[in-house]
Amino acid sequence: MEKFHNVAQPILNGNEKKYVMDCLDSTWISSNGSYIHKFEQEFAQFVQTKHAIACSNGTTALHLALMGHGVTVHDEVIVPSFTFVATANAVAHCGATPVFVDAEPDTWNMNPLLIEEKITPRTKGIIAVHLYGHPADMDPIMEIADKYGLFVIEDAAEATGAEYKGKKVGSIGHSAIFSLFGNKIITTGEGGIVTTNDGEFTQRIRLLKGQGMDPDRRYWHPVIGYNYRMTNIQAAIGCAQLENIQWHIEQRIRIAELYKDQLQSCSALTMPVQKDWAKNVYWLFSVLLNDVTEAQRDEMIERLVRLGIETRPFFHPMHALPPYQHLQPQSEFPVANRISSQGINLPSSGNLTAEEIHFISDSFKKVLS
Amino acid sequence: MEKFHNVAQPILNGNEKKYVMDCLDSTWISSNGSYIHKFEQEFAQFVQTKHAIACSNGTTALHLALMGHGVTVHDEVIVPSFTFVATANAVAHCGATPVFVDAEPDTWNMNPLLIEEKITPRTKGIIAVHLYGHPADMDPIMEIADKYGLFVIEDAAEATGAEYKGKKVGSIGHSAIFSLFGNKIITTGEGGIVTTNDGEFTQRIRLLKGQGMDPDRRYWHPVIGYNYRMTNIQAAIGCAQLENIQWHIEQRIRIAELYKDQLQSCSALTMPVQKDWAKNVYWLFSVLLNDVTEAQRDEMIERLVRLGIETRPFFHPMHALPPYQHLQPQSEFPVANRISSQGINLPSSGNLTAEEIHFISDSFKKVLS
Ligand SMILES: Cc1ncc(COP(=O)(O)O)c(CN[C@H]2[C@H](O)[C@H](O)[C@@H](OP(=O)(O)OP(=O)(O)OC[C@H]3O[C@@H](n4cnc5c(=O)[nH]c(N)nc54)[C@H](O)[C@@H]3O)O[C@@H]2C)c1O
Ligand SMILES: Cc1ncc(COP(=O)(O)O)c(CN[C@H]2[C@H](O)[C@H](O)[C@@H](OP(=O)(O)OP(=O)(O)OC[C@H]3O[C@@H](n4cnc5c(=O)[nH]c(N)nc54)[C@H](O)[C@@H]3O)O[C@@H]2C)c1O
Repeated sequence: MEKFHNVAQPILNGNEKKYVMDCLDSTWISSNGSYIHKFEQEFAQFVQTKHAIACSNGTTALHLALMGHGVTVHDEVIVPSFTFVATANAVAHCGATPVFVDAEPDTWNMNPLLIEEKITPRTKGIIAVHLYGHPADMDPIMEIADKYGLFVIEDAAEATGAEYKGKKVGSIGHSAIFSLFGNKIITTGEGGIVTTNDGEFTQRIRLLKGQGMDPDRRYWHPVIGYNYRMTNIQAAIGCAQLENIQWHIEQRIRIAELYKDQLQSCSALTMPVQKDWAKNVYWLFSVLLNDVTEAQRDEMIERLVRLGIETRPFFHPMHALPPYQHLQPQSEFPVANRISSQGINLPSSGNLTAEEIHFISDSFKKVLS
Repeated sequence: MEKFHNVAQPILNGNEKKYVMDCLDSTWISSNGSYIHKFEQEFAQFVQTKHAIACSNGTTALHLALMGHGVTVHDEVIVPSFTFVATANAVAHCGATPVFVDAEPDTWNMNPLLIEEKITPRTKGIIAVHLYGHPADMDPIMEIADKYGLFVIEDAAEATGAEYKGKKVGSIGHSAIFSLFGNKIITTGEGGIVTTNDGEFTQRIRLLKGQGMDPDRRYWHPVIGYNYRMTNIQAAIGCAQLENIQWHIEQRIRIAELYKDQLQSCSALTMPVQKDWAKNVYWLFSVLLNDVTEAQRDEMIERLVRLGIETRPFFHPMHALPPYQHLQPQSEFPVANRISSQGINLPSSGNLTAEEIHFISDSFKKVLS
């Protein structure tokens, strides 16, 4: 068989090996070690926030951010129904309840017009997710939050480097989280990071991520904490990735442009958008298959695998999943239901050549027809 | 200043670099990759259990094990008061309540004679901790568990390789957890692993550690899961460490014998024991400072730092910590209270030479007098 095209793959073409060897040579391989602080500082500088707090992954980053904003049992947090499950689960990890909002038909992000009607006296905050690399429409979301005294967390897991009205995502909400999993724009293998300008919030989540241990009193724990620490090796990889972050982002955009050239004319497809206020980093190049059922889409995914092409279906919407399906009626989510069953992510690794994208696009068109 | 003697340090004298380079060369650096399965298989073989499930650290391992046994809000779980905080916190992470039991004066582990009086209709299980490398007295604990239909988790975070009546710790309870933090007998930087003979339990916690995602249906999540995955790089380090595990264990025992030679005659100290049914792996060589107050012990720790020697105080008992101090009266824990304030862990890295141990022991005796 020819080369198999995965949806994603880490590109380790910088100082990754050198820095990891440095960790092993120095024996600093745990969550003690100098790369962690360096990575946090450089990430904060990239996002343009005062603080960045590294942790074990994007899911624990969300849990930390929610706890940092004081979310606890009986609270409600507004999240998009159309997102990766971690956004909703992190709310549940606090013992709180996620309240779902339907998507916009073009950006696929949470529709700001539908947020206000979901606010109750129990609502504590909003998580805005920047899906597949396109920023959510932050201005109206921040306005609503201001009006009701809510916090806003940006879930920028999939959108490192994206911009909203010229500002980097992760610098707009009261806090933000990023994922550094192996399929992300930059990666630490597994990894996550929280950004914020709020110094007290930063203190709180540093305490929580490190077993709640008083920094001045060994084994004295004023609060119930967690072990959500990032290792020095993860951070070393992250430092190397950050050195090339512009390149990593440009590759995603290059790939998206190549795909658009190939697929734009296809009437069976809806292309991803880039709003005039947005810089889309096209984490995974994603399209809708117009007028197909979920079963047909899944059948196409199978056929693509046989042609050597891995893809991903869009996420099942949160309101449809067993742990959450009792919360809100399915009928509240016409857009999420449709895009969830029609969406597909194509291979988007930064190292894909124009030739490979031609091959993938051609195969995709064959499967479509 | 002369060499500073840390309490612990990872010893990476095997194939650690080679295997980590292999991860970077192959680009498999996330929680996908072949070292994870290999590490799980080899760890299970070492402990002599059917299954081992790798995860991000010992604390998440405990949380997974408790969820695997079905622990949820309103349940009670019996744990020693004298332990590292993660043992109690993991119970709280399930929304359940830890119920504390006092320690034995010689092994410092949970006193099995005091367990039965703490059982209520809400009690669901027991966590037996093998502290500082010495196994807990498992037979009476398993008997009580049988009698009341409780599960037993062994917290073997500090006792990889220790034995109880000829059986490896981690193979005796219904499940067990190990920590692979940078200060442990073998390490993956950060890391944890759950062992068990129970196949269904294994399935449940595999689901929970991987976002609750149905292995046969992408982005379909029948339960609320977590991202508690170990990376391929962590597992690669673990595989290399496991190849030398007998050596790593022997070093701890060698060091303990050297310390005993030096310190045994000191009437101001109580030496660690090894029960006739136990193999103690002496994770951190630990002694009690007879007849000193907590403040005096902490003052000695400061003086040792000035002599180039890092130590650790024993843990504050759980019943005294702010999140738990309202649960049970202080007076129930005379032994934990005393050992907590008198105990100290000396440097115990596997690479300490006899000369260094002489130096540390001499300095320690100076500080004592
Ligand atoms: C909105 C939002 N919020 C929060 C989170 C939580 O972040 P985190 O995953 O906890 O860090 C996320 C993260 N969601 C990701 C998760 O990271 C999740 O694990 C992932 O699910 P998946 O599609 O099942 O992932 P996969 O099949 O394991 O990997 C995707 C592709 O990347 C490749 N890949 C992953 N790791 C590696 C690696 O180490 N090496 C190579 N060569 N390829 C790798 C795989 O081969 C696949 O081609 O994709 C989801 C969309 C999020 O999207
Ligand atoms: C009964 C029990 N149950 C559950 C757990 C939870 O496991 P886990 O930590 O979540 O994996 C634990 C784990 N408890 C540990 C924890 O792992 C905890 O983090 C640790 O606390 P600490 O004493 O504050 O740890 P430290 O100061 O960060 O590291 C201890 C020594 O090890 C050295 N060290 C740690 N990592 C490295 C490293 O990567 N390189 C070098 N050279 N030295 C390292 C430090 O320099 C110190 O000398 O010690 C505790 C006793 C446990 O004991």
